[in-house]
Amino acid sequence: MSQEQGKDDRHHALMARKKSVVDEKIAAAQEERGVLVINTGNGKGKSSAAFGVVARALGHGMKVAVIQFVKGRSDTGEEGFYRRVAEMFPGSISWHVSGEGFTWETQDSARDAAAARAAWVIACGYLANPEIGLVVFDEFTYALKYGWLDVAPVLAALAARPRLQHVIITGRGAPEALIDAADTVTDMTLVKHAFKAGVKAMPGLEW
Amino acid sequence: MSQEQGKDDRHHALMARKKSVVDEKIAAAQEERGVLVINTGNGKGKSSAAFGVVARALGHGMKVAVIQFVKGRSDTGEEGFYRRVAEMFPGSISWHVSGEGFTWETQDSARDAAAARAAWVIACGYLANPEIGLVVFDEFTYALKYGWLDVAPVLAALAARPRLQHVIITGRGAPEALIDAADTVTDMTLVKHAFKAGVKAMPGLEW
Repeated sequence: MSQEQGKDDRHHALMARKKSVVDEKIAAAQEERGVLVINTGNGKGKSSAAFGVVARALGHGMKVAVIQFVKGRSDTGEEGFYRRVAEMFPGSISWHVSGEGFTWETQDSARDAAAARAAWVIACGYLANPEIGLVVFDEFTYALKYGWLDVAPVLAALAARPRLQHVIITGRGAPEALIDAADTVTDMTLVKHAFKAGVKAMPGLEW
Repeated sequence: MSQEQGKDDRHHALMARKKSVVDEKIAAAQEERGVLVINTGNGKGKSSAAFGVVARALGHGMKVAVIQFVKGRSDTGEEGFYRRVAEMFPGSISWHVSGEGFTWETQDSARDAAAARAAWVIACGYLANPEIGLVVFDEFTYALKYGWLDVAPVLAALAARPRLQHVIITGRGAPEALIDAADTVTDMTLVKHAFKAGVKAMPGLEW
């Protein structure tokens, strides 16, 4: 056996020990229930991770609802794609877009608040429907941050949802109370962004 | 005007100023080219963010290739879903799965290395094809970490790819040289995970 091979084998033995600890944790993790996921932070991937899980859920035959709380633009690839999926598999996915953009773009906080509250009424319908396996509240944290919605009734509606329903909430600056209530929280941390190197927001990648 | 409204308006004025700085940066970011994205870190969302961008790219009519460098399981929702999409829209997406699992599961590093090298040959075919708008190398960092592939030829192939082609690489522990070469890097940072609260890996959410 070469020295390199010996080192490789020791590394594998270490990995196997680590794996057995993970296996024990997996054996212990047996509860089956809906999971509340939050994707927050200043980096990329908060919304796209949610849209990837939409593909995953549809692949398992689950019904999905997406509510976008801030309409950045009307021609996103994800919306176009999933609307075509909805045409091919009627009832598989429902897609709702609310509002006109971020409040510092619209300069009309009363209209933004009204749009967010209307979207929340739609959201509550899905949170009350056990046939919906996954609900995505995209860019939802802004509705809380700007006070368009109160946190307490949101937490109550999330807590009362069907037992096996997953919810993914995206957006920067998720409030502490929402993080406390969540099961899985990821902070998408910006390391670097092509934008800073002068690259345009590219279709198919950024929107 | 109420005190609350005055505070709200000052907040909006501040947001508008911030927005104008962002607008200037957007005006300056005019280069159109393919972007090399890395999703790394110990949190959730690295692969699912890539699969969400796949939906986005398909929505813009781009052709997509996905190469999974580590086969965790054979029944993932994302693979099932996108294989059905490929049937409905022939030529839109190609999906390849390599290997048998992580090396500490297979206990056979020679076989894992051979599988990774075979997958890399497939990957190079897509990196040479300007018709492919987006290529995803899922769980690719492990192939570098375990030395199944050398970093230098990988960087060379990435650098020589078609000018408008986007590449997304996912996996924990992306090596420094890959991060240096990338345009956009996000560290998916674990804040908390349902797994630790005893919840099973749920179909449609985790796989």
